[in-house]
Amino acid sequence: MRKIHVIGIGAGDPEQLTLQAVRALRDTDVFFVLDKGEAKADLVQLRREMLAAHVPEGAYRVVEARDPERDRAAGGEAYSPAVGDWRSARAGIYERLIAEELGADGTGAFLVWGDPALYDSTLGILQEVLDRGAVAFEYDVVPGISSVSALVARHRTGLNRVARPVQITTGRRLAEAFPEDADDVVVMLDARQAFRHYADQDIDIYWGAYLGTPDEILVSGPLAEAAPRIERLRAEARARKGWIMDTYLLRRNPGDA
Amino acid sequence: MRKIHVIGIGAGDPEQLTLQAVRALRDTDVFFVLDKGEAKADLVQLRREMLAAHVPEGAYRVVEARDPERDRAAGGEAYSPAVGDWRSARAGIYERLIAEELGADGTGAFLVWGDPALYDSTLGILQEVLDRGAVAFEYDVVPGISSVSALVARHRTGLNRVARPVQITTGRRLAEAFPEDADDVVVMLDARQAFRHYADQDIDIYWGAYLGTPDEILVSGPLAEAAPRIERLRAEARARKGWIMDTYLLRRNPGDA
Ligand SMILES: C[S@@+](CC[C@H](N)C(=O)[O-])C[C@H]1O[C@@H](n2cnc3c(N)ncnc32)[C@H](O)[C@@H]1O
Ligand SMILES: C[S@@+](CC[C@H](N)C(=O)[O-])C[C@H]1O[C@@H](n2cnc3c(N)ncnc32)[C@H](O)[C@@H]1O
Repeated sequence: MRKIHVIGIGAGDPEQLTLQAVRALRDTDVFFVLDKGEAKADLVQLRREMLAAHVPEGAYRVVEARDPERDRAAGGEAYSPAVGDWRSARAGIYERLIAEELGADGTGAFLVWGDPALYDSTLGILQEVLDRGAVAFEYDVVPGISSVSALVARHRTGLNRVARPVQITTGRRLAEAFPEDADDVVVMLDARQAFRHYADQDIDIYWGAYLGTPDEILVSGPLAEAAPRIERLRAEARARKGWIMDTYLLRRNPGDA
Repeated sequence: MRKIHVIGIGAGDPEQLTLQAVRALRDTDVFFVLDKGEAKADLVQLRREMLAAHVPEGAYRVVEARDPERDRAAGGEAYSPAVGDWRSARAGIYERLIAEELGADGTGAFLVWGDPALYDSTLGILQEVLDRGAVAFEYDVVPGISSVSALVARHRTGLNRVARPVQITTGRRLAEAFPEDADDVVVMLDARQAFRHYADQDIDIYWGAYLGTPDEILVSGPLAEAAPRIERLRAEARARKGWIMDTYLLRRNPGDA
């Protein structure tokens, strides 16, 4: 039976790998790396360095595939989708990777950024591949340090206040409304800097970009003061590197709730 | 200057330690272990085994202290609080531990269950000790795999659905109401099995107890069917071991929102 490990590798710091993740890396014959295009080649590079650091050379192969989205722009290549939406296109690619690159008793792995449980499609796609029924495999999941955990650790604060809830959401949703029943809100996938909508409220922000990497930037403080600073730093960093990954915690004072 | 590491050690599986955590363990002279009383001696034991596995013998000391709550029942002992509420009582204990057990250039560590960012008081108490001003130190935080990440990894599911939020809350709050603006809800610290209030709704549950340990129990499925099973398994396990740690994800179908 084929086996697949879905391995959370942490959100930037290679030391955030767990011992369980290192064990799973060493147990793997073939690593599937999906090139997410854009300037994220850096992230593919980080994965390759992790493998070099923890797995003996010659003990594994790396198979790269193109992300369907990228392919749509670049014209078809190996493992590119024929038709269908992005998710089933991806399922088609995964299916072929597993069927063609993995021996009948082989072990493959997907290295997932942060924790596979947060805003990542790998688990959903693998389930879709199984549901299609064309290729059979077992799989397990190795949890990873998410960018959320990395963020608050660097700021040396908690996610929730005592006995209170925390919500994790997206920039798109925050732009629509501040969550009703949580005053501590972590925002991911925010290309629009939705925090700016709330700069007139009594909220503290804990912001981090490129967490765990040499480019890491941290800003915290009352939102009204921090927001313009973050906007400026964010624009500068984005211009310099060509891409940015950032996330933040908003902590609203109950009086304003 | 004294240094303190606050180290997340994962939620039960010793392999969930990160490489960064192992490095911090090896950098530490004195480990402070707060005995939480009850049947949690097992958890103190797990910490001792981690140290034995990763740090050379003779390279560190372990200092145990009594939790104020326990002390209130058991009568005063070393590092017990004199007066005040639980939190400042604890700050007093931490202050004395750091001042008396750590040399002027020593490095101490608190080993925190799961991720220090989730429902844990260590960071708040250390900040309070610093604010008191009686003892000075630097500190950093090593993020850990939380029981939340461990839970969903074992169930091979995500925390959030595509582009949707997830809320992390307590059993007490869930007993009051189901969160308004999140259909994926993780519940911790639930001694009352608050999920039972929602068994008539179209909700799936992913439940886990003693995650990452040899006693691990997993149950998932439609809440109406799973709830009675969880109640039974939970009662049996609790009777057998004398204590239980469990957490769960509720995934409500949008139609019922
Ligand atoms: C597609 S999601 C994947 C999240 C990932 N599974 C995790 O656990 O962190 C990508 C989002 O995660 C956040 N993110 C990931 N890595 C980050 C880092 N190193 N620094 C800051 N934010 C990061 C950003 O909000 C980004 O938009
Ligand atoms: C005081 S909180 C600490 C949480 C911890 N900081 C973390 O990141 O998991 C304790 C709660 O965490 C959950 N928990 C911790 N470890 C667990 C485990 N191994 N299995 C199931 N639940 C666990 C339970 O809901 C428990 O009531």
